[in-house]
Amino acid sequence: MDNHDPSLDAARRRVAAAYDPELLRSAGHRLADLLAEHLRSVQASESVVLNWCDPRELSAEAAALCPSFSQGTIVGDAVDASLPGLTRRFAELVQLSLSHGINLHDPRYVGHQVPAPVPIAGLFDAIGSVTNQPMAIYEMGPWGTAVEQAMIGRLAECIGWQGTNYGGIVTHGASLANLTALLVARNVTLGESWERGVAGATATVASDKPAKLVVQADAHYCIARSAGILGLGTDHVVKAPLDERRRMDPVRLDETLRELKQAGHPIVAVVACACATPIGAFDPLDEIADVCARHGVWLHVDAAHGGAALLSRRHRHLVAGLERADSLTWDAHKMLFVPALCAFLFYKDKRHSYEAFRQNAPYLFDPSMPGLAEFDSGLRTVECTKRAAALALWGVWSLFGPQLFADLVDVTFDLGRKLYARLVDAPDFVALHEPQCNIVMFRHVPAALQDAPPERIGEFQWLLRKAVVQSGQYYLVPAAWNGVATLRCTLINPLTTEADLDGLLTALREAGKVILQRF
Amino acid sequence: MDNHDPSLDAARRRVAAAYDPELLRSAGHRLADLLAEHLRSVQASESVVLNWCDPRELSAEAAALCPSFSQGTIVGDAVDASLPGLTRRFAELVQLSLSHGINLHDPRYVGHQVPAPVPIAGLFDAIGSVTNQPMAIYEMGPWGTAVEQAMIGRLAECIGWQGTNYGGIVTHGASLANLTALLVARNVTLGESWERGVAGATATVASDKPAKLVVQADAHYCIARSAGILGLGTDHVVKAPLDERRRMDPVRLDETLRELKQAGHPIVAVVACACATPIGAFDPLDEIADVCARHGVWLHVDAAHGGAALLSRRHRHLVAGLERADSLTWDAHKMLFVPALCAFLFYKDKRHSYEAFRQNAPYLFDPSMPGLAEFDSGLRTVECTKRAAALALWGVWSLFGPQLFADLVDVTFDLGRKLYARLVDAPDFVALHEPQCNIVMFRHVPAALQDAPPERIGEFQWLLRKAVVQSGQYYLVPAAWNGVATLRCTLINPLTTEADLDGLLTALREAGKVILQRF
Repeated sequence: MDNHDPSLDAARRRVAAAYDPELLRSAGHRLADLLAEHLRSVQASESVVLNWCDPRELSAEAAALCPSFSQGTIVGDAVDASLPGLTRRFAELVQLSLSHGINLHDPRYVGHQVPAPVPIAGLFDAIGSVTNQPMAIYEMGPWGTAVEQAMIGRLAECIGWQGTNYGGIVTHGASLANLTALLVARNVTLGESWERGVAGATATVASDKPAKLVVQADAHYCIARSAGILGLGTDHVVKAPLDERRRMDPVRLDETLRELKQAGHPIVAVVACACATPIGAFDPLDEIADVCARHGVWLHVDAAHGGAALLSRRHRHLVAGLERADSLTWDAHKMLFVPALCAFLFYKDKRHSYEAFRQNAPYLFDPSMPGLAEFDSGLRTVECTKRAAALALWGVWSLFGPQLFADLVDVTFDLGRKLYARLVDAPDFVALHEPQCNIVMFRHVPAALQDAPPERIGEFQWLLRKAVVQSGQYYLVPAAWNGVATLRCTLINPLTTEADLDGLLTALREAGKVILQRF
Repeated sequence: MDNHDPSLDAARRRVAAAYDPELLRSAGHRLADLLAEHLRSVQASESVVLNWCDPRELSAEAAALCPSFSQGTIVGDAVDASLPGLTRRFAELVQLSLSHGINLHDPRYVGHQVPAPVPIAGLFDAIGSVTNQPMAIYEMGPWGTAVEQAMIGRLAECIGWQGTNYGGIVTHGASLANLTALLVARNVTLGESWERGVAGATATVASDKPAKLVVQADAHYCIARSAGILGLGTDHVVKAPLDERRRMDPVRLDETLRELKQAGHPIVAVVACACATPIGAFDPLDEIADVCARHGVWLHVDAAHGGAALLSRRHRHLVAGLERADSLTWDAHKMLFVPALCAFLFYKDKRHSYEAFRQNAPYLFDPSMPGLAEFDSGLRTVECTKRAAALALWGVWSLFGPQLFADLVDVTFDLGRKLYARLVDAPDFVALHEPQCNIVMFRHVPAALQDAPPERIGEFQWLLRKAVVQSGQYYLVPAAWNGVATLRCTLINPLTTEADLDGLLTALREAGKVILQRF
């Protein structure tokens, strides 16, 4: 041990400079101005939605800014390490980052199920990022745990759950939440699969037939993935038939379950959607819950997008019956308009939340403080260390009250109706469904293509989308209907106007004309 | 459709107020001052490390601040919705959050493997939180993707990988990274387990014996969990024997693998650690890689904590051989000192990174833009939507250069040695190992307990820790050695001083005296 190692003294001085509170202050003020000006400009559509760039070039640009390990490794060689110098450099890096990101706050962003978040939500989130409030055990993230518990309580009230029977947890996204819920369903259905493995467990249940997972045919890809991850096998995912509006058909679900059981297959769960991804179809949850109850099958509802409808008097009928799910997923980073990621996983019976992981880490969970384990999130999530991911939602909720979330649902669902009305009125557009929410799937079919074969019309949609997106004018996404490509919008920036919707159709028509010249 | 629904007009006005760039600006400036003042105060140890509070009380306090859904739902009832009013309220909520969090920047924080992060890292992170830069497909998070690619390249250089053969991805924590790597190993080893399930796949491999996962006996609990999640079964986790310094013993690993193979068990992977959690033991990776190569077994290294040693000339010998791993995990939110979560998963052969999830989502991945898929992170992570989690690391690296990371490793590893030296010199403390890094496990055994049975000495450690932590003086964690409780420190705040280490021993002695009066 050498207390006076001069190279360590120098290291400590460099570290102290990096941890200087005055650097945080001056950089924080610069950031506030840069973000506010950027938001103003983006909301005014002064630039592009997406500044499209080749990913290799952009990655090279990001790499060029950070010196490689093998290059000189002493701060100060190339850097002005004074406080004003570091602040200036910080501002340059922020500016560059803002200029190369996607601008979800541009009202012409009508893309994926990822919102233009309430801007101040990101500032609440930054409390956790700057101070680091990691969860896993209560002690390490006491306030992160408290706000998560508060929001679990508030959302449970929306679901219609009172008391202390239900359980909830926040995790990093709906894919992980769905995986965790289906892990619980697997552990419950195939009794010893956690300990003995799926191969060992299937040998102990009543049947030696492989277990099946019955899912909405349009369910998000993470559901089938879960079957692959959990050792059930994607081949054992059974798609439940849909009705003409692509909602799960309870009568045919009943038949499917009966047939599977007669053939001797254990059923891990039924996965319903509120709503399904492609066109935002809401399954009839009450009738599905009846069917599942009759067969004694676990009902999981992926309400990642649609859970927020519970907060709207106009739209909550879409999720009637959600309270009957054994487990459900609800993303705050979709229709509660906070930044990614903040996904809620709920269990009707909280005891099930401990079924996911049947083991503990003795160095984490303290037997001298019993009763705290309920607040140690690591016992119930795939993550050990977890961000304090609910801070943003708690902050926005506390600042504005729940009415803001109702407003956001009402305004964006209304935009879905408005886009649909325009498509119906336009002879050169085809709406593929009447929207139940803010997701709309459609095609642009100009007169010249009215009699073209479907594949060609589909190919035209791909080219249209690419042209419009790479021009920076609008951002919308590709999809498919019966195997043929379509366009798809999620109206998830509440500042989008009717003029923006008119402009979208115009932009697609203009791009179409150019494409048709060489199509 | 009613364009003039007055209640929707009111909703749009409330939404516009919440999205006002001027609110972001004024709140951002308040946040900068509040965070800087908090950091200054915490770094000066003016308050407590942890303001301990009962979790039920704290959750109730967090809930009391956000109105329930069933209460009045109109903003303005209880809220001053003017810009100054909202800014004032925002500042109150920030203050409250800061006062109830854990203060990792207090130099007396010597707890879990979670750092006091470089403060400005959180501001880089906030760019993504305020503007929302979700990844999954390149288009939606172009800059998030670019900085991730840049950092993958920089860390790969540290590992010693050049060219384009390796693959890397960022995910939400090492638990998820380890799970993903072991999923790949499972898919590679049990050829059709993704499609047919583990039960179906084991029937097709050469043996019908259950597959085994061979792990460092002290590996993090997420490794055994992965066996439970992946359908392999926690019963099929085989612990590889350790040497006297709790490092994996390559000779006995060789024997273990030979015995398992002779008995007909497929081997999914060997999991080594750099370093293992309990005492920070670094496995001899070169020799382990030799053994794995000889048996043709996948080698995964959990270098979540120790990967950063690669950046230090003094300590990189600890991870010699890391470049020979088939897959490895490295958390930037541990020893690269950025806030949670930013975990890197690397594959020696990048083709393996597509083995994890053998399916795609047609509405996400665009066939008209081939070659982009390599930049669509969602193809290779459990997450679909993902935060732009590498922004903080990229920002710090670009601002200060890689020397800062070398400094942080050197300074904190040195603190580990300094604590150890004090323990060795103190007759009433027992160091349980000579530290290889910044993790130190020990016990306080005052004279009165020198002859007490081990369980009683262990019980004393639990009570000591609880007393010191709940007093707010220091934060350290519980652990166990041969089944008996210990104290454990990770020196992961680089501003911790020798005086703080002296004070830790004093605080434990003082708490011990009080406990002994009624023990």
